[in-house]
Amino acid sequence: MDELIDRRVLDFVLGDWLKVDRLYARAAFAEHSRESTSAMLDVADRVARTRFLPHYKDADRQEPWLENGVVRLLPQIEDALGAFAEAGLSAAPFPERFGGLAAPNVVYSACMAHVMAANIATAAYAMLTTANARLLCAFGSEAQVDALALPQIAGDAFGTMCLSEPQAGSSLADIATRAAPDGEYPLGSRYRLTGTKMWISGGDHQMGRNIVHLVLAKIVGPDGVLPAGTQGVSLFATPKTLADGQRNDIVVAGLNHKMGYRGTVNCLLNFGEGAATPDGAPGAIGYLIGQPGQGLAIMFHMMNEARIGVGLGAAALACRGFALSRRYARERLQGRPPGQRDARAQSPLVAHADVRRMLVAQKAFAEGALSLVLFCAMLVDDEKTALTEEERSDAGRLLGLLTPLAKTWPSEWGLAANDLAIQIHGGYGYTRDFDVEQLYRDNRLNAIHEGTTGIQAADLLDRKILRDEGRGLALLGARVADTISRARLEPSLSGWAHDLAELWAEFSQTIAVLAERDNRRALPHAGPVQSALGHLVIAWIWLDQCVVALPGGPQDPNLAAGITAAANHFFAFEAPRVRIWSNAARNDASLPPALSDFVL
Amino acid sequence: MDELIDRRVLDFVLGDWLKVDRLYARAAFAEHSRESTSAMLDVADRVARTRFLPHYKDADRQEPWLENGVVRLLPQIEDALGAFAEAGLSAAPFPERFGGLAAPNVVYSACMAHVMAANIATAAYAMLTTANARLLCAFGSEAQVDALALPQIAGDAFGTMCLSEPQAGSSLADIATRAAPDGEYPLGSRYRLTGTKMWISGGDHQMGRNIVHLVLAKIVGPDGVLPAGTQGVSLFATPKTLADGQRNDIVVAGLNHKMGYRGTVNCLLNFGEGAATPDGAPGAIGYLIGQPGQGLAIMFHMMNEARIGVGLGAAALACRGFALSRRYARERLQGRPPGQRDARAQSPLVAHADVRRMLVAQKAFAEGALSLVLFCAMLVDDEKTALTEEERSDAGRLLGLLTPLAKTWPSEWGLAANDLAIQIHGGYGYTRDFDVEQLYRDNRLNAIHEGTTGIQAADLLDRKILRDEGRGLALLGARVADTISRARLEPSLSGWAHDLAELWAEFSQTIAVLAERDNRRALPHAGPVQSALGHLVIAWIWLDQCVVALPGGPQDPNLAAGITAAANHFFAFEAPRVRIWSNAARNDASLPPALSDFVL
Repeated sequence: MDELIDRRVLDFVLGDWLKVDRLYARAAFAEHSRESTSAMLDVADRVARTRFLPHYKDADRQEPWLENGVVRLLPQIEDALGAFAEAGLSAAPFPERFGGLAAPNVVYSACMAHVMAANIATAAYAMLTTANARLLCAFGSEAQVDALALPQIAGDAFGTMCLSEPQAGSSLADIATRAAPDGEYPLGSRYRLTGTKMWISGGDHQMGRNIVHLVLAKIVGPDGVLPAGTQGVSLFATPKTLADGQRNDIVVAGLNHKMGYRGTVNCLLNFGEGAATPDGAPGAIGYLIGQPGQGLAIMFHMMNEARIGVGLGAAALACRGFALSRRYARERLQGRPPGQRDARAQSPLVAHADVRRMLVAQKAFAEGALSLVLFCAMLVDDEKTALTEEERSDAGRLLGLLTPLAKTWPSEWGLAANDLAIQIHGGYGYTRDFDVEQLYRDNRLNAIHEGTTGIQAADLLDRKILRDEGRGLALLGARVADTISRARLEPSLSGWAHDLAELWAEFSQTIAVLAERDNRRALPHAGPVQSALGHLVIAWIWLDQCVVALPGGPQDPNLAAGITAAANHFFAFEAPRVRIWSNAARNDASLPPALSDFVL
Repeated sequence: MDELIDRRVLDFVLGDWLKVDRLYARAAFAEHSRESTSAMLDVADRVARTRFLPHYKDADRQEPWLENGVVRLLPQIEDALGAFAEAGLSAAPFPERFGGLAAPNVVYSACMAHVMAANIATAAYAMLTTANARLLCAFGSEAQVDALALPQIAGDAFGTMCLSEPQAGSSLADIATRAAPDGEYPLGSRYRLTGTKMWISGGDHQMGRNIVHLVLAKIVGPDGVLPAGTQGVSLFATPKTLADGQRNDIVVAGLNHKMGYRGTVNCLLNFGEGAATPDGAPGAIGYLIGQPGQGLAIMFHMMNEARIGVGLGAAALACRGFALSRRYARERLQGRPPGQRDARAQSPLVAHADVRRMLVAQKAFAEGALSLVLFCAMLVDDEKTALTEEERSDAGRLLGLLTPLAKTWPSEWGLAANDLAIQIHGGYGYTRDFDVEQLYRDNRLNAIHEGTTGIQAADLLDRKILRDEGRGLALLGARVADTISRARLEPSLSGWAHDLAELWAEFSQTIAVLAERDNRRALPHAGPVQSALGHLVIAWIWLDQCVVALPGGPQDPNLAAGITAAANHFFAFEAPRVRIWSNAARNDASLPPALSDFVL
């Protein structure tokens, strides 16, 4: 059977490149070791293969459905998630005081990559639940953690995030769900919520004992009016089932039918429309998390994690498409390369240079994306557990800069990899009999949910570069410079080192130019800036992996050859695009006409 | 309702840019005029809207199905194709002696773009039938034309092309369908066919009175053995129903279930397996078209036309996605551009620079692709009817060069446009409630069928550039040079003229370098060469349209502004990529490792 995530690659990325071994020396991860990590990856791979993969197509064919107002799922989904929890994976990333296994986040993420590669739609329930529980552990009271987070960590309950509304997709300042104060309770300040939330993944189902919705809503002012803008946006834990066993007033108003990711039910939810009034009063019952008005800030804790999770899923789908098309290209006989036209037997697809190029491109995209996401996952660990305050703070700042890229780069280029996986399969790849077709449909979501590519770009340029005054960028630049100086010493790498240095300098110059401008003239260039920085970071990663893999080198020469081939492809075809995007971002003429002149 | 194909754009492309008016002076098109063209486009638009568009989603939801061995389709498909024929569109491109309307091919193609934009899967039956009938008209005997082509032209019968077999997808030298001589008949040399053909679009259904399969098969040698390679590959018209009303021995062995294009049934067909033996003898009955061994040469007549048809469909899907997302961006209110954060009301999506960029990019891709295909469609007319032998021959040579690009560029970049159309719709675009989701799935096929992008690239570099010794490229270069010299006179265009001149020179240099090499070292670069030339041609087209639209200019200043905006986007973000591909194609180091060193 094909690998889900190539273990040779993963071992190199975690062990040789990220050097996760140094985490085990930290108190937080004292229970862990190279051996326990290896065992955990084995478990994840086994659960992924035996419980997630088998219903990948079934869950695509049989979407979740509504039956008497409740959502029904294929039973294999619950079975897989049960096995996931039973194997300790739902508890893995949590500290021991929450019943967790205290695994490093980067190791947990590598485990998640397996189940995501096997079945992204089923894995999404676990990803959302972990993110939900983490938020509660970070911001909830002890009572809230006990009642709402611990069951999720144990795999007995599930979590969602409820942000969007019909009139407010990306624009969260415009949400209109109302929260009215309803007294103080052991679970905290209680509110009554009324409003409609949409695009709620995992919004309803019959799995586990409860679903904890984290709902953004605005607290009504004393005048009964909702405050304008982001003021007053607060976060409420709103369980499907209340402590006394009664149903909260949350109704599934409809399901979305998606191109892919079909196993993840996606709901329109009505809160407090009066369908159920547990105690006779109107409104769904929710408990304030953190302080009033902190909703967006807290939610971004979960969102940032979810963004990296989206990038991880996109990378995992790309890795799986790469593995499938690599095998197909080796097995399928078709045609002959130039100069062998008269041979009797047909050659395997991989004998054609064009097919090899599509494979190498996939490797560059898929494993480049996976490396970026795991690098960020490790920064999450460093932000919390690095030995000095400065290291922790730098890790957090660098993570902030890279989070939009960890979300968008795998989503955009992982999809491009899946496109190539189909192309290698020819007509077969376009049929629903082959997984690559579904990988492509599934992966198309990742550039949209948890903030579109455009929203990430605005975050990157506005908050993470300009308002940060380039501090995060300087941290990244120092790492890039270090890689360049080491690569210059290696004759086979010095050309790429030179290219990367030049491209980084041009990009930095572009940022300097934009920083001098008024926001209204700088921010419209966010898209090309993000594209440029994304490609720069991946070029850096490939060069850095070459530096680690080549001199002296790991035991496996095939691994080094593969890394060099991917870097070679990336520096020939992709890295030079940084210059195009940098130039365009510097040049206002590249902008589409202003709204007033916009006629097409 | 949104336009299917923007009529202002189409009128500009046909009238101002291609100057189709000059066709009406030619004897072949004496019955036609600007007015009749306009009327024909109106008819196509009406039929497309009223008969093709309404079942676009229905045909996606309810795929063709097998019932007692025969294929069933939604009745709306037959209804639409009936209306298409009734409106004269199936007869439009044929000379009067075949019962046709003798419309210029470029006008017919513009009509087809409407029905393809409305419903590509239903339009595919018409496209294949026209191509089939054209092949028969060009290579069939009078009796074959009467019996097999005329019913297709009249809309009473349908046509297919049967090339691929399970072991021979792109590699047609490896087909194994056998044709055994079976005597001479009024319909020509009769053969008995046995073999399996796959990916047969429109391979079976109950529409019309017959289906004419054009089947590639090898004539068995006197020793009963099939010749090796492409030798002996011949073409046979193999009707589903024979002249005496009996069923030929053609059996539907299965249907393929595709990602999109679902309304077009796609069959695995068994010929001569013994299910029906009309006269007791084994093998399906087929009549030789042309001479033995001419099969591939003749089939390429149909294939070349089908390739342009695929490009036309891909462009049409891109145009429709552009129209839908443009309307959505104008109507959907979401967020506020920088500097307007405090405004009460949300702005339309189009107020965001990033959304405008995605719209302008779509225009550049979609209408650039449409222009390229219509340019090629006009070359088909010129090849047949231009006034001098030299003009006809040059048109044919240029058409040969551009055909792989007319097929691949719209397929690759029309899909990229559809991707942006989804992105503008956000989460909605990912649901099956919106047409953009289906456009994207439908368009993904176009880079595969009628020869994948890689196969087209091999054709382009090997046959159309190197073996042609650059003659076709020189014809294109002369046109590019002419545009550049005119654009230099226009201050607002001189920068792009300069860019295009430089890129063309670099590309030409690359070709000169490749021409010096052995095929085994040159041909592996076919992919990047095709990408580079495709982008060069589109850059030329946009610059040429600016030249036509700007000075003095057409009546509609919005039209000129739109053309300039698309050109501006293309020259900022896309044209510079020509340099990357040119450099990579020149540099053997950019190639993926040779097969012997290929480890990933």
